Amino acid sequence: MTASSRPARPAILGPNQYGKAENRVVKITRDGATHHIKDLNVSVSLSGDMDEVHYFGSNANVLPTDTTKNTVYAFAKEYGIESAEQFGIHLARHFVTSQEPIKTARIRIEEYAWERIETSDAGSGSTGGADEARHSFVRKGQETRLTQITYDGETWEVISGLKDLVVMNSTNSEFWGYVKDKYTTLPEAYDRILATEVSGRWRFNWTGDEQKMPDWEKSYDQVRKHMLQAFAETYSLSLQQTLYQMGSRIIENRGEIDEVRFSLPNKHHFLVDLKPFGLENDTADGAVYFAADRPYGLIEATILRDGAEPRIPVDMTNL
Amino acid sequence: MTASSRPARPAILGPNQYGKAENRVVKITRDGATHHIKDLNVSVSLSGDMDEVHYFGSNANVLPTDTTKNTVYAFAKEYGIESAEQFGIHLARHFVTSQEPIKTARIRIEEYAWERIETSDAGSGSTGGADEARHSFVRKGQETRLTQITYDGETWEVISGLKDLVVMNSTNSEFWGYVKDKYTTLPEAYDRILATEVSGRWRFNWTGDEQKMPDWEKSYDQVRKHMLQAFAETYSLSLQQTLYQMGSRIIENRGEIDEVRFSLPNKHHFLVDLKPFGLENDTADGAVYFAADRPYGLIEATILRDGAEPRIPVDMTNL
Amino acid sequence: MTASSRPARPAILGPNQYGKAENRVVKITRDGATHHIKDLNVSVSLSGDMDEVHYFGSNANVLPTDTTKNTVYAFAKEYGIESAEQFGIHLARHFVTSQEPIKTARIRIEEYAWERIETSDAGSGSTGGADEARHSFVRKGQETRLTQITYDGETWEVISGLKDLVVMNSTNSEFWGYVKDKYTTLPEAYDRILATEVSGRWRFNWTGDEQKMPDWEKSYDQVRKHMLQAFAETYSLSLQQTLYQMGSRIIENRGEIDEVRFSLPNKHHFLVDLKPFGLENDTADGAVYFAADRPYGLIEATILRDGAEPRIPVDMTNL
Amino acid sequence: MTASSRPARPAILGPNQYGKAENRVVKITRDGATHHIKDLNVSVSLSGDMDEVHYFGSNANVLPTDTTKNTVYAFAKEYGIESAEQFGIHLARHFVTSQEPIKTARIRIEEYAWERIETSDAGSGSTGGADEARHSFVRKGQETRLTQITYDGETWEVISGLKDLVVMNSTNSEFWGYVKDKYTTLPEAYDRILATEVSGRWRFNWTGDEQKMPDWEKSYDQVRKHMLQAFAETYSLSLQQTLYQMGSRIIENRGEIDEVRFSLPNKHHFLVDLKPFGLENDTADGAVYFAADRPYGLIEATILRDGAEPRIPVDMTNL
Repeated sequence: MTASSRPARPAILGPNQYGKAENRVVKITRDGATHHIKDLNVSVSLSGDMDEVHYFGSNANVLPTDTTKNTVYAFAKEYGIESAEQFGIHLARHFVTSQEPIKTARIRIEEYAWERIETSDAGSGSTGGADEARHSFVRKGQETRLTQITYDGETWEVISGLKDLVVMNSTNSEFWGYVKDKYTTLPEAYDRILATEVSGRWRFNWTGDEQKMPDWEKSYDQVRKHMLQAFAETYSLSLQQTLYQMGSRIIENRGEIDEVRFSLPNKHHFLVDLKPFGLENDTADGAVYFAADRPYGLIEATILRDGAEPRIPVDMTNL
Repeated sequence: MTASSRPARPAILGPNQYGKAENRVVKITRDGATHHIKDLNVSVSLSGDMDEVHYFGSNANVLPTDTTKNTVYAFAKEYGIESAEQFGIHLARHFVTSQEPIKTARIRIEEYAWERIETSDAGSGSTGGADEARHSFVRKGQETRLTQITYDGETWEVISGLKDLVVMNSTNSEFWGYVKDKYTTLPEAYDRILATEVSGRWRFNWTGDEQKMPDWEKSYDQVRKHMLQAFAETYSLSLQQTLYQMGSRIIENRGEIDEVRFSLPNKHHFLVDLKPFGLENDTADGAVYFAADRPYGLIEATILRDGAEPRIPVDMTNL
Repeated sequence: MTASSRPARPAILGPNQYGKAENRVVKITRDGATHHIKDLNVSVSLSGDMDEVHYFGSNANVLPTDTTKNTVYAFAKEYGIESAEQFGIHLARHFVTSQEPIKTARIRIEEYAWERIETSDAGSGSTGGADEARHSFVRKGQETRLTQITYDGETWEVISGLKDLVVMNSTNSEFWGYVKDKYTTLPEAYDRILATEVSGRWRFNWTGDEQKMPDWEKSYDQVRKHMLQAFAETYSLSLQQTLYQMGSRIIENRGEIDEVRFSLPNKHHFLVDLKPFGLENDTADGAVYFAADRPYGLIEATILRDGAEPRIPVDMTNL
Repeated sequence: MTASSRPARPAILGPNQYGKAENRVVKITRDGATHHIKDLNVSVSLSGDMDEVHYFGSNANVLPTDTTKNTVYAFAKEYGIESAEQFGIHLARHFVTSQEPIKTARIRIEEYAWERIETSDAGSGSTGGADEARHSFVRKGQETRLTQITYDGETWEVISGLKDLVVMNSTNSEFWGYVKDKYTTLPEAYDRILATEVSGRWRFNWTGDEQKMPDWEKSYDQVRKHMLQAFAETYSLSLQQTLYQMGSRIIENRGEIDEVRFSLPNKHHFLVDLKPFGLENDTADGAVYFAADRPYGLIEATILRDGAEPRIPVDMTNL
């Protein structure tokens, strides 16, 4: 836009984006009597030459958000959903290459996992047997898988991750040797519960169409496995230490990933004081804890492959 | 209370109850290096001779809600938590038998399931091996298990259940042959997705201390299994039919249960019309669906063992 | 249904209902440049001769839930929305009188209030002045108004209410003189915060078309006012006492109402112990409190006009 | 930290922060019988020399999150809460200046507004009159006020804002003249509802202790007023245009603010097609709308004072 095309006002347009958020798309694939399911929540965000619509309400450069929604559903049929990442790549490429005013597309996807329902050996007579039940699912309900694809016409950025994965070590966690100021009352702990709700994101070093694309499904499974094992196998002196172990285990084992960021709320489990009732409550004997909601410690950090630059936003929680 | 002890006002006290809700208690049991976890949310509700406190603010008959909270934690240590049901029975008996003014106790419990984290074969060197990791858990995150124990000093009522269990059949569901009035526009469906979020409650016929108590843990697992199998194995002509099959399968297979009630939202998955984009979207080929939030069909019914009386409240959702 | 028409199985159908829940309907009424808004969430639940659909999947008696949704929108246009109660009465009457198998209809409605945005005196030039802005609203965001209409073809039951109304007295609340058992550790309080999130329901004594219908809008405003004033003006020795005062004030002032039920969580505000930091924290000087989430006391009771029977369900919270 | 102090591993620590989130603090101030309330949710986040704790679990530089919680409550008593911004400034300055390893503090605060309950003229006899009721409040329940204070020992950054403010224009909104590609099916609209749930943040140009500090309370009220008036008074051709008007009105009227960012979901209200039921549903006569949940258009942009740099993060929603 030329300078003359904006209003003679002190307020100018800065960074902006728009699109349709939370398109809930379910794709069933039939392989004979065996069905497969992909269950996604897709959010499209586009940016580019959008001065006119903000300053004057001219929609000449605006592809409607309704159209971006339609595109999500049409692409699910045309291309299928091989993985959330691959699906997002299809969509981002389409918007940037098909619409001249659109310079960058960012696709965010949540994926919900489903498991098959195990049916009885013989089925229930006339209503069918085990074969027919290959179309029956129960939502896994554990973590939500995430990905964010950003494309500017040349370079790809893929950040995948998960949220809402709650984990606990019932021992092998201590916390002592910390700074004590006039507001410090916390007693040191030598055997405590360490629990958190993992929110993690990891950035792939795949950035260009000329590079070999990662196996997105396998990568997710492996990252998740290493992360959980690092959590379980770390004797923890602080949640920060555990966080670093989780991130470094991923960096060391998964060459396709250069950066990991975690936001780990410390889900406090407080030992209940049962002395007033004549009861001991020692951790060594198996103890009773109060699981607190708020406030909670919040530990956030990025772990990088040596030489990589941090690109995952510092704040994954809302401003 | 004598009639003279209430104020000379037109408004009188009706049914009432009080207690401490949502006591979050986690109990760890240590079996050598192997830990076990019980993770509950316990709500206590008491009723009895409570006219004075309502009419005049006299707390002479009121055991504080804070005390009921303390009791929950103390009992978790004294008796352990064998099952949510057994724990609730301990608590209900205590309040009714130890406090003269308390005539009835009702204990509601939510239980969250945890799975063990599988650790790597060799552990991570100095921080331990597989043995040590028997204290590491990930929250299962699927349904929430429920129970409600009511005791009036003589008779027990145990209603257990679950909520938030999302299930789907991607085929074997039809809906046609229904009433059509002037406001009917719905086309008949011969191959649709049937999905719901199961909220179920089931009442045990165990009511007295002289009867053999059910195996609460086994019962839950079996009810859940039969319910899921009935959902998967029913070729459905309506969600009502599926609901009846789920309930009757439980009644037929679990002699300890006399009544089941389900509240089943029909989680609509609408076939997307892709014709404007030149695409077919037939269920037979694997289709693309829009997963809708609101509104939703809501199907609720009680299934009874022949001869049993319905006692589970009709409305499990909020008034 | 004749006995022969049910399957030869041990499980029989008990109480049941079905319909479309959470139909979000917004009705704008234009009075020249001044617009009015009604913003409702309508849930329809029907019951009647529904054995066939549960036992055999025959939908011959089933008016689709989709049709009930269409009816909600069509009636909003045909009859307008004078009040949530009046709108629910139109709907309930329609379903029971137009569909022979439907014996009872229950309509639940949530209503969200909006306020007008005050505009500047002169407007903003070409985009209009104060007149034009009579179509601009901000959602009030305080309580959600509720009603439930039940009709069986002869008798009406109307229960209205509200939820999510958070109130606080920062003094004039005490709690002492309660029962102390071995699990009691709570210190007595002579000046505490009393806060709750009001969930209330009240039943009208209007039950038949031959009676004069209440002014639903005025009734709601008056009930709300009396309830809030009773909360504010009661010097409280227990939340139960405050609850009774709130209910009795309604019964005494509103002749159209025979029964009130409240579910009042005690939103605990704990005085923070600041002694370790050399600070007093006395209520008399203005104190600092920790606002806790869980657990919370929960006080529930019905207040009745003398001679009336309790009909509002004891449990307004989920089973 | 010297290079030798980190482990010989490929993964290095990047940006990190830690603290206690969601400290719920309520401060009552007594002015005779008239009480005042400040109700905040305070989150503390600190960063600095934290390599050792991540790499080795040494807490020697770690002020416990529990201590930061204690500090919040102690400061509420010591300094009172004049405004959320002023309170955050006290806290941030304390952490950075009192702890050598802490280089930056970020304080986020949510504030919940309360209104006084209007009491009856005469009170209720012995339980008090209007004077006593100056301690009775009802939570306003509209928007949540926000602020974020960041301090690095030299420079202040204050970003305030709000969320959850739902607004609607029932007319004076159009949408047409947009791009049409093969996936476009949306019909043009010449009279539609425009509704959104405002999430806004604005950055102050106050950055140093030598500058005069803004009047935080007055600023908030004025920004909110201008924003609402701009929404109401704009004849809208696109939500982007309305967004720009809202931002520019703030920039033009409030000299203390250099940058505004909005995230505006387009809360779609779809005209219901009532033709199948023989009904017209024209906007000019007052129409019936379906208020949709998902998907929704999402419009996000920054409005800057000419010459200012954008510093508010582009993504206020979760990654």
